Amino acid sequence: MSHTPVFIPPQRRRAWQSLQALADQPRPHLRTLLAAADPERTAALQFHAAGLTLDATRQAITLPIWHTLLALAQESDVQAHIEAMWRGEPVNATEGRAALHVALRGGPLADPPWGQTIQSEVRAELARFLDTAERIRDGQWRGSDGQPVRHVVNLGIGGSDLGPRMAVRALAPERPGPVRVHFVSNVDAHALHDVLQPLDPRQTLFIVQSKTFTTQETLTLAASARRWLADAGIAEAAQQPHWIAVTAHPERAQAWGVPAAQIHRFWDWVGGRYSLWSAIGLPLAIAIGRTGFEQLLAGGHAVDEHVRHAPRARNLPLALALLGVWNRNFLRCPTLAVAVYSARLDGWVPFQQQLEMESNGKSVHVDGSAVAVDTCPIVWGGLGNDGQHAYFQLLHQGTHRIAVDFIGVQDLGEPLPLGSAHARVVRNNLLAQAQALAEGRDEAATAAALRAEGLDDASVARLTPHRTYRGDVPSNLIWLSRLDPYHLGALIAAHEHKVFYQAVLWGIHPFDQWGVELGKTLAQQRPGGDAHRH
Amino acid sequence: MSHTPVFIPPQRRRAWQSLQALADQPRPHLRTLLAAADPERTAALQFHAAGLTLDATRQAITLPIWHTLLALAQESDVQAHIEAMWRGEPVNATEGRAALHVALRGGPLADPPWGQTIQSEVRAELARFLDTAERIRDGQWRGSDGQPVRHVVNLGIGGSDLGPRMAVRALAPERPGPVRVHFVSNVDAHALHDVLQPLDPRQTLFIVQSKTFTTQETLTLAASARRWLADAGIAEAAQQPHWIAVTAHPERAQAWGVPAAQIHRFWDWVGGRYSLWSAIGLPLAIAIGRTGFEQLLAGGHAVDEHVRHAPRARNLPLALALLGVWNRNFLRCPTLAVAVYSARLDGWVPFQQQLEMESNGKSVHVDGSAVAVDTCPIVWGGLGNDGQHAYFQLLHQGTHRIAVDFIGVQDLGEPLPLGSAHARVVRNNLLAQAQALAEGRDEAATAAALRAEGLDDASVARLTPHRTYRGDVPSNLIWLSRLDPYHLGALIAAHEHKVFYQAVLWGIHPFDQWGVELGKTLAQQRPGGDAHRH
Repeated sequence: MSHTPVFIPPQRRRAWQSLQALADQPRPHLRTLLAAADPERTAALQFHAAGLTLDATRQAITLPIWHTLLALAQESDVQAHIEAMWRGEPVNATEGRAALHVALRGGPLADPPWGQTIQSEVRAELARFLDTAERIRDGQWRGSDGQPVRHVVNLGIGGSDLGPRMAVRALAPERPGPVRVHFVSNVDAHALHDVLQPLDPRQTLFIVQSKTFTTQETLTLAASARRWLADAGIAEAAQQPHWIAVTAHPERAQAWGVPAAQIHRFWDWVGGRYSLWSAIGLPLAIAIGRTGFEQLLAGGHAVDEHVRHAPRARNLPLALALLGVWNRNFLRCPTLAVAVYSARLDGWVPFQQQLEMESNGKSVHVDGSAVAVDTCPIVWGGLGNDGQHAYFQLLHQGTHRIAVDFIGVQDLGEPLPLGSAHARVVRNNLLAQAQALAEGRDEAATAAALRAEGLDDASVARLTPHRTYRGDVPSNLIWLSRLDPYHLGALIAAHEHKVFYQAVLWGIHPFDQWGVELGKTLAQQRPGGDAHRH
Repeated sequence: MSHTPVFIPPQRRRAWQSLQALADQPRPHLRTLLAAADPERTAALQFHAAGLTLDATRQAITLPIWHTLLALAQESDVQAHIEAMWRGEPVNATEGRAALHVALRGGPLADPPWGQTIQSEVRAELARFLDTAERIRDGQWRGSDGQPVRHVVNLGIGGSDLGPRMAVRALAPERPGPVRVHFVSNVDAHALHDVLQPLDPRQTLFIVQSKTFTTQETLTLAASARRWLADAGIAEAAQQPHWIAVTAHPERAQAWGVPAAQIHRFWDWVGGRYSLWSAIGLPLAIAIGRTGFEQLLAGGHAVDEHVRHAPRARNLPLALALLGVWNRNFLRCPTLAVAVYSARLDGWVPFQQQLEMESNGKSVHVDGSAVAVDTCPIVWGGLGNDGQHAYFQLLHQGTHRIAVDFIGVQDLGEPLPLGSAHARVVRNNLLAQAQALAEGRDEAATAAALRAEGLDDASVARLTPHRTYRGDVPSNLIWLSRLDPYHLGALIAAHEHKVFYQAVLWGIHPFDQWGVELGKTLAQQRPGGDAHRH
């Protein structure tokens, strides 16, 4: 990061070398570690922040390992780096930009670290886009023939899609509003067609979300949507009430035909994957309303405060980061499986995938030297209950070393008369999977279980190897108290800070994404590659 | 597999050892390999089957490597194993069962390898469930008060969900029928609530899909659905017209309350993840009708014929298997990223994940010995166009070795007036990503590109490392001619056979899934864990 005078690669830090020494020693199986139930270890590996709980007792670490991880955080000066981010320093050094998503949820502060100018701009735009959201919800926003808007279609991809889409899916069913929000990201015309086909153009509003307002996919979709409105008899000149744009380049949106009053802006210093808190969150604000959106911001801000003020050993996002480094660099797990036990959070994994992999999928240090250690794991997974009946087989019996993050909701609510029975099954499954992965079942226990099933000796001998579980798969249990805007905001912010901390620990830049550029360039060089320009 | 008298672990095969020697030699960068454009190599690495094309020219293999992979297939006797499967031998040895999904799509054969009995049972049940599907589509199937069914809700998880869900999503929009098909798999009550909430119970039919008819999640969902009907005034005794069951244990479904005439059956010798071709496909048959379903079967059967009769070097699923082994075991790629360039195939990756990872996520050989080589990679990914704006950063610039399968559709169709512009962007992006991953961009080319952007020398020097692409990421391009039932059937069957071939090459059992049992047992032992039994 910019304020570090001399860059030290991670493997040259003392704590890193101590961790390597600890990793090289024989380590107790998780079964043993958990059976010991050391109260000091148990207490040290529980973390709380803003209604989130992290139970890290099933990580394959001893107390000495945990303390050495904390020493690595100190040696890497993680807090100085995060404070530099807060102060608006150009921590996105290859683009020469600040990264101030924390300002978006900072609320009105007397003395904001990022300065009054940014605070004023943020507050003004927040008020504007929440006002837009409420006007749409209230039916005040009218289409070209005076009908209120009933359907909002968000056109955007990547950071302009994954966050709002995930959050709307998670939160909107709880608060059904008068307007339905849809998302189209993929440039395949079928994606757009399948969403538009049942809608009435006169009641449909499009939001074009693009930081640069040059995104090929989004502009191709927007051109087709404009044609769809025109084909329904809304001439281009009359289409203005059907378009909103959210962008860091308002002049381009205006040139495209969106009236200035209907353009919401955000700034260069908001990364796409951190932009849900800005006007990119407009579709979410339309879905859940002003109060809900403000609660989301409050949850994010509460985690920011936690990160700045909690003692290092109690810092939940830092714990996520350190445990992740242990699993990635010392236990050599190439992937992190994320298993979500809440059906409405089924957009979470794609969101986390982008957040982690686009930020830290790098192999060059901040000083331009090649990394000698591994960086971001591949993040994959989905709804855990469904995974149990599919790919969990490999987690339990494959040849991989894997780390798992379980995400659960403590109070699932009871939307159906038998809801509590469902909630019990959900919870039991989450806990059972974490237990089975950690403890496994050795040959002796397996043979005993097979004998208890009534199998004869020959069958027991033949089947035992196939029905044994190695175990020793480390996992986090991350609990939200409830699935509501506040706790979802907290969950997102906790992961944002995890990613930042890991970038500091690995010595890489988390806020650029040069890796996505070459493919874009090559696509536009192919025949018809600039077809969207018109 | 059962008919192999002496088991030889893969690493002891001569071809395997030759492959290791080839992998240990310096290998040309893919950029070099592609620039050479050797016509013999290009021709050898193109495969065609049933309207599918596999272009494997971007795999990091030379012709000698390819020929050695073919030798490995021969040494491993893959064709003898697959013929044993066709003949109904108990290739699922730990469960003592055959694996005869090929019989489900085999059509009426004069001399079926699996015998006349199985053929008759299959043909009879196929006729029955297609008839059920047509009665529902025609509006002949009536609810308790005589109204035709408008909504079908599928209750099932894993193999009883992922295949039909993927296929309905892929194919149904093309052929909108009178009945809408919904899927609920996750036991979270919100998943069920969100689907049921807008539906009219009197027009809603449930299909309970469970091979064993003991699946806790599915029975919990079914109990709540029954209660939902009752709360809408359809007393339990009157509910019969609202329930269909698909199971290998009809007696249990009947005991649960489904009339025998409304139970469709399949058999022990159909694995859950291979069951789309059986009555588990009923929701798909309802969505696309008899003709569509028969085309799906025909596409699968065409690949079966290809697999049995094509020369080894032209066998498309075998090529997928061998190239996967090369990437997994010799290039040491722990994961396979699947990037799909067709929005309606957004259910494909979860389906392929289960197919591969539940089948081959094993670490014990068929003889019970521990594997010394890696088996199934982690399969992950999603819609490639969306991934480009998210996790592709890591593919291009992370520290992983990754293999990628691109799946595209040659004729995307034009559902919107500007559809051809969309199709061009889709195709250009797929090809550009494959090219960028293969070729990368070295430091010299990067510096030249930055200078061309007008950067000064200091900036060029500072930014070049961050904007360089290692490249050399191998990929397959798998093309469907069109996205229709026939070609989707072919795509599925091709992957089924890929998985089987890989199991033979690795010497593991692909048809059991003992790894999913321990978690189930532990979940049911927890407080309230048997809550669904009533």
